[in-house]
Amino acid sequence: MDEFVYVGLPTRVVLGVGALDKVPDEIDLLGIEKVLLIATKAVRDDADLLEIALKDRFAGRIDDVRQHVPIERAEAARNKAKEVDAQGIVAIGGGSAIGLAKAIALTTRLPIVAVPTTYAGSEMTPVWGLTAEGTKTTGSSLDVLPKTVVYDPLLSRRLPLKVTAASVANALAHCAEATWTPKANPITDVTAVEGVRALSEGLRAATTEPTDLEARSNLLYGACLAGSTLAQAGTSLHHKLCHLLGGTYDLPHAETHAAVLPQVTRVKALDAPRAKVRLEAALETDDLATGLYDLFTTAQVPTSLKELGLTEGQAREAADKFAPDDPEVLDILIRAWAGQRPEGAAR
Amino acid sequence: MDEFVYVGLPTRVVLGVGALDKVPDEIDLLGIEKVLLIATKAVRDDADLLEIALKDRFAGRIDDVRQHVPIERAEAARNKAKEVDAQGIVAIGGGSAIGLAKAIALTTRLPIVAVPTTYAGSEMTPVWGLTAEGTKTTGSSLDVLPKTVVYDPLLSRRLPLKVTAASVANALAHCAEATWTPKANPITDVTAVEGVRALSEGLRAATTEPTDLEARSNLLYGACLAGSTLAQAGTSLHHKLCHLLGGTYDLPHAETHAAVLPQVTRVKALDAPRAKVRLEAALETDDLATGLYDLFTTAQVPTSLKELGLTEGQAREAADKFAPDDPEVLDILIRAWAGQRPEGAAR
Repeated sequence: MDEFVYVGLPTRVVLGVGALDKVPDEIDLLGIEKVLLIATKAVRDDADLLEIALKDRFAGRIDDVRQHVPIERAEAARNKAKEVDAQGIVAIGGGSAIGLAKAIALTTRLPIVAVPTTYAGSEMTPVWGLTAEGTKTTGSSLDVLPKTVVYDPLLSRRLPLKVTAASVANALAHCAEATWTPKANPITDVTAVEGVRALSEGLRAATTEPTDLEARSNLLYGACLAGSTLAQAGTSLHHKLCHLLGGTYDLPHAETHAAVLPQVTRVKALDAPRAKVRLEAALETDDLATGLYDLFTTAQVPTSLKELGLTEGQAREAADKFAPDDPEVLDILIRAWAGQRPEGAAR
Repeated sequence: MDEFVYVGLPTRVVLGVGALDKVPDEIDLLGIEKVLLIATKAVRDDADLLEIALKDRFAGRIDDVRQHVPIERAEAARNKAKEVDAQGIVAIGGGSAIGLAKAIALTTRLPIVAVPTTYAGSEMTPVWGLTAEGTKTTGSSLDVLPKTVVYDPLLSRRLPLKVTAASVANALAHCAEATWTPKANPITDVTAVEGVRALSEGLRAATTEPTDLEARSNLLYGACLAGSTLAQAGTSLHHKLCHLLGGTYDLPHAETHAAVLPQVTRVKALDAPRAKVRLEAALETDDLATGLYDLFTTAQVPTSLKELGLTEGQAREAADKFAPDDPEVLDILIRAWAGQRPEGAAR
C-alpha cells in the first residue's frame, strides 16, 4: 500500500423519495431562520412547493441562473442575500444553481443546503468557479462546501434521457479518473468503484424506464459518490482535455466527457491496474474503456467529438495546444474525434 | 434503495511507512505551537523519538494511561494540559491513550492528533468514555473527534500476534455489525465491506509473517475504515452483548468480540442480505459467520467465552439479564460460550 493522505469532508447527506419535504427540518437543524432560495427554471414547480413549505423562513428567491456563474450575477446574488438578510441559502437545480450559491458563500460564508437535480456532483465538493470577461477562475474553500445535501429522486425523474445520460457520463468520468490522479488512494478507489456501480446500474435502468425511482435513486447516490471522490482525488488528463475543448471550441460540457472518457481510459487506466479490475467488475465488463463506450452508446450519448461539431483539424490543433509533440494525446483526441470503439491495447 | 442519512466527518488521515516523522508537520498544519504528548507504555520508545522530533513544540507528557479513562486520570490530564499551556494533544498508542486525549478535548476543545498503534478504531469516532465509581459513561461530541490521524505501520509491527488478532476481531465486529444497525446505509455498507477485505487480508498475512509491513498497513487501513463505519452506522445487538459481558464478568474486550461475533452474525446477517453477500466476497468465504469463525481460529484467537473463563451458568444468566425469555439471545450466548462453529441456518 502506497502512502496516502485522505481528508474527510463534513457534509450531511439525506437521500430518499420525497426528501424535498425534509428541507425545512434540515434548515432548522442548521439554526437558519431566513433563507434565500435559488432555483433553476427546470425545477421551478418544485421550487414553488419548497417556497411554500419554508413558510416564514423564506426571505427571497433567485430564478435567473446562468452557466459558469458570471461575476455580475454573483455580485447581484450577494447583494440580494444581504438585502433580504439571509442566514442561509437553499439551492435547488443543477450545477449552475449550486454554483451561484457557492459564489455567495465564498464572500459571505452563508451555509448552503443543496438539492441537486442533475448528476454533476458539485454539491459534494468545495470547488467554486466564477467567470469574468470570458475567463473562468476556480478555487477551493470549505466555506462553499454545502452543509447539507438533500437528494430526492422525485425531482430528477422527468430529466430527459439524453440530458440524464450526458450528466451521468460526467459523473462516471469523476469516478474513473479519480483512480489515476496523483491524489488517488485506497479510500477514493472504493468510493469511485461504488460510484461506477450505482451510476451504471442506474443508467441502464433509466434507459429502459426513465421515470423509475430506483434508477433515479441509484443515479443520485452515484452522483454523490462521484462528487465526493472528485473532491478528494482531484482530476487529471481527462478533465484537462475536456476543459480545453469546452473552453476553446464551446463544446457542451457533459457530452464532451462522454466522447473523451473512453479514449483516455484506454490509456490511463493502465496506470491503476488494481482499480481497473474493480471498476470493470462494478461496470460488469471485461474492459473498462470499451465498457464505458458501450454504456454511453446504449444510452444514446454521442461518443464522438465529430458529432458535437468539432472538425478533425480542431482536434489536431487541440492536441498540439495541450501537449505539442505528444503522440499519446494526439492519438486520444483523434480517436475521441472519430468516436471509434476503444479496442486494443494502448501500450 | 431505502431512505438514508449520512454525516461526513472531517478527519484528515495520513497513512504510510514512517508517517510518525510527519507528526510535527501535521501539528504545524493545525497551527499548534505547544503540544501535550500522551503515550502508552508499549510505544514508549517511539514516543521518545516523537518528543525529540517535536522540538520546542513539546510542552509536556503523560505516560501513565489506564483502560476505560478513570475520571481522576482525566481530571489530572486536563490540569496538566492547562499547566503546560497546551494548544493541542498528540496521543500515541491504543484506545486508552486516545481515550484520555478525548477526555481532555471534551472540556477544553483542544485539537487531537492521534497516532494509533492498535486496531480499535476509536481515533475515527466522536465517541468518548469516562469511568467514575465503576460506572462508564459514554457520549458523542465533534470536539473529541481527532483533527488528524497518523497511521504508521512501523509502530504496530511488534504487536504480538495474539493481541493483533484480538484487536482485529474487534475491528471486524465494527464492520460486520454496521451492516445491520438501524443507521446502516449504502455508504457505510461500502466502507464496512472494504474494511473486512483489508482486515482479513492483513490478518491472514500477519498470521504468517507478523512483522510484514504490507500486512500492518492493511490492518491500519482496515481499522480506519472500521472506526469510521462505526462512527456512522453505530452499533446493535453484538456490541450490546459484548459490553454486558465485559461489564458484568470482567471479560477482555477484544477477545469477547471474537467469541460473540460469529454467533451473532449467523443470526443478524440475515437481516442485511445484500451486504452479507458483499462481505462474504470480501472475506473470501461462502458463509459470513463460519468465515469469521475460521479466520479467528486460524489466527489463534479464542472463539469461546468458556476459554475466557465464563461459566455456562453465567452465559445463561447474561442472556436472561439482557433479554428475558428471548430464545434467540440465549441460543447466541450458549453457542458463543461453547464456541461451536456457527454452521446451519439460523432461521
